[in-house]
Amino acid sequence: MKIATVRITPIAVSDSPLLNASGVHEPYALRSIIEVEADNGLVGLGETYGDKPVLDSLTRVKNSLTGLSPFDLTGLWQRVHAAGRSAVRGVELDVSPGSQASHADQKIFGAFEVAFLDLQARSLGIPVHELLGGAVRRQVPFSAYLFFKFASDIDPSYQPDAWGETLDETQLVTQARTMIDRYGFGSIKLKAGALDPEHEVACLKALKRAFPDHPLRIDPNANWSLDTAIRMAKQLQGDLEYYEDPTPGLDGMAALHKATGLPLATNMVVTNLTEFRRNIALNGVQIVLSDHHYWGGLRATQTLAAMCDTFGLGLSMHSNSHLGISLMAMSHLAAAVPNLTYACDTHYPWQNEEVIKGGKVAITGGCVSVTDEPGLGVELDHDALGALHEQYLRCGLVNRDDATQMRKLRPDWSLRRPRF
Amino acid sequence: MKIATVRITPIAVSDSPLLNASGVHEPYALRSIIEVEADNGLVGLGETYGDKPVLDSLTRVKNSLTGLSPFDLTGLWQRVHAAGRSAVRGVELDVSPGSQASHADQKIFGAFEVAFLDLQARSLGIPVHELLGGAVRRQVPFSAYLFFKFASDIDPSYQPDAWGETLDETQLVTQARTMIDRYGFGSIKLKAGALDPEHEVACLKALKRAFPDHPLRIDPNANWSLDTAIRMAKQLQGDLEYYEDPTPGLDGMAALHKATGLPLATNMVVTNLTEFRRNIALNGVQIVLSDHHYWGGLRATQTLAAMCDTFGLGLSMHSNSHLGISLMAMSHLAAAVPNLTYACDTHYPWQNEEVIKGGKVAITGGCVSVTDEPGLGVELDHDALGALHEQYLRCGLVNRDDATQMRKLRPDWSLRRPRF
Ligand SMILES: [Mg+2]
Ligand SMILES: [Mg+2]
Repeated sequence: MKIATVRITPIAVSDSPLLNASGVHEPYALRSIIEVEADNGLVGLGETYGDKPVLDSLTRVKNSLTGLSPFDLTGLWQRVHAAGRSAVRGVELDVSPGSQASHADQKIFGAFEVAFLDLQARSLGIPVHELLGGAVRRQVPFSAYLFFKFASDIDPSYQPDAWGETLDETQLVTQARTMIDRYGFGSIKLKAGALDPEHEVACLKALKRAFPDHPLRIDPNANWSLDTAIRMAKQLQGDLEYYEDPTPGLDGMAALHKATGLPLATNMVVTNLTEFRRNIALNGVQIVLSDHHYWGGLRATQTLAAMCDTFGLGLSMHSNSHLGISLMAMSHLAAAVPNLTYACDTHYPWQNEEVIKGGKVAITGGCVSVTDEPGLGVELDHDALGALHEQYLRCGLVNRDDATQMRKLRPDWSLRRPRF
Repeated sequence: MKIATVRITPIAVSDSPLLNASGVHEPYALRSIIEVEADNGLVGLGETYGDKPVLDSLTRVKNSLTGLSPFDLTGLWQRVHAAGRSAVRGVELDVSPGSQASHADQKIFGAFEVAFLDLQARSLGIPVHELLGGAVRRQVPFSAYLFFKFASDIDPSYQPDAWGETLDETQLVTQARTMIDRYGFGSIKLKAGALDPEHEVACLKALKRAFPDHPLRIDPNANWSLDTAIRMAKQLQGDLEYYEDPTPGLDGMAALHKATGLPLATNMVVTNLTEFRRNIALNGVQIVLSDHHYWGGLRATQTLAAMCDTFGLGLSMHSNSHLGISLMAMSHLAAAVPNLTYACDTHYPWQNEEVIKGGKVAITGGCVSVTDEPGLGVELDHDALGALHEQYLRCGLVNRDDATQMRKLRPDWSLRRPRF
């Protein structure tokens, strides 16, 4: 089996005005859909970032993959390295390691690796979780990912959404209740770092009162100074499953852990193996939020999992806005990772559109099910793909830029990190 | 594809009276040959230790594998755990982690995993190195593994060997020259810890004079006290590629490294991930000698390799007495590991018998070649297997016991660790 054709299709997916430390989500999230077609007609699917530098790199690598075996991941690495880095520079968001040039090769490799693994598994008639060694769970738990947000009518570019505004305690508890009623999530994550820390902590405490049995996480995306993070920790002590990236830098996180003893999680300061090693020396964070999109694919994330197990670190999963192919890649991976110690994050409930046949993947009891369907178990809906590609061309966005969008809605807003 | 039948065949392979810290090799080395046959008629091969506790565990697990997919390594783990530890206790040699009960599950899993991977690769028509991600090298380098030894006529139980006695400098240089002329090895390892340390160091210096361009290693198997190891280090400084397990324990190795600055290698104090973690804290050794037979198979050794890369440790490969199936498993693995920073060890030149078709695997220019033949690229010779099984039944050995054999040849010898 050799690779015959590779197709990369950029798409734009409607998104809501969700607030974070870097600004606000734009009306569309950008993704790239990857189809790797073998000479036997089988197709492996992948999904990754849709920003210009990634798209440019994916496109430069893709033609060199013709004739390669989809089992030859070393060959894939060689071609990713040979293609060199994209000359295009995008906007680098510190809230999203996937946007950072430092992870360029891991991102490009990982994007194709998932499609290669999907193709491997399809050729074998086995699910990806089996290819990864076999499922230790069939139900992969995800958390309710709550955001402060504007109502979608704040800018006519947004598609109407039914969630409305979420800026206070009552609105946030309503958002949580809707999401939990709809999907059955057993834990809750609050994206913070957007509003005043005291207010965000009060909102988290409101969630605690409303959902006393749901483990809670708060993620200020490093937008709190160390002093603020320590001050908030005193109020949060006892309320948190873990404290995610409250303050910048591994040294800052290490100081925070030393000062508070709270378990700290990250998708910002342990994002590659060099940082992993440094974290072992510093004991900065105790939980790593993995993400195959920038860790270099599913196998590399399994290696990260083994390292977390070795060094006694907890493991969960980070997410950016994504569709079902990414969701299933995350789910098959999580199914095969024994030491997934926390429910995974996912933005998936915030997206209404899909590119896969049958529409949105079901989340039931807070979980995505993995089945024994071959590969990732999903098929592309080419009409839907075409429509979202049209939407990409129409919307004009080519790079995620939450800060510029925020300034459009709030002209007096400016980016400061950490803000609080 | 499901597993239909599993066959485990214990064999005894003629061995020579090679000296080490625990005594002397017996007239036969014991191995188990594993055949995992799928319902499509394909057979995956494995080879591991042949000692009674291992053989007993392999036999207890094997029937539970029927119906399992050879891709389901999680299922294999579950069955290994479910079978529990063998009630049989063997002789535990500190020179061989494979003989230690603490590695029992990893040994049994790893033994079947290789056969499962061979079967996976055969079913795909690809070599195991490609299944592991793809070869970064086609020629896998091994070192000349030198031993002090008795002549084989010391005990009529030994098959005659042409090597003769090796106890002094001249004999050792002759042994090295024969081995290098025959196989082209580019580096040399001396198994030490058997004779007086001053004498062994003098022998190593004789090798250095005879082979000034060959990197040299010495492995006293922790039979030197810390003081002795430091004293010998002063004489060896400048002669060594690395200093392998001179002194017992991770703390001892850490003290030795601190005292001498020499790069230390081990297959004795970093033999699992718990020890790996402790080594990072202590900086005991700088080079890990991996061995898929007790690290839990090929994939687990790839994970170890990634960890070594992350933490800046060198990587090489340990060996016990073995035949061609193990050699090819080691070679396919080594071919797919980017950061194999040193030539691998192998006892292979010391064995004359084989169980694979075509007889002994060629070592040319110090290297084993991996090809694109499916799986491990070797087939069982059932006649040869039968003959070596008969030899197993005839010889009466069921556990490796170098100390008892030494007392048989030298009645006044007794085991002391460290001896020097
Ligand atoms: Mg985060
Ligand atoms: Mg050794």
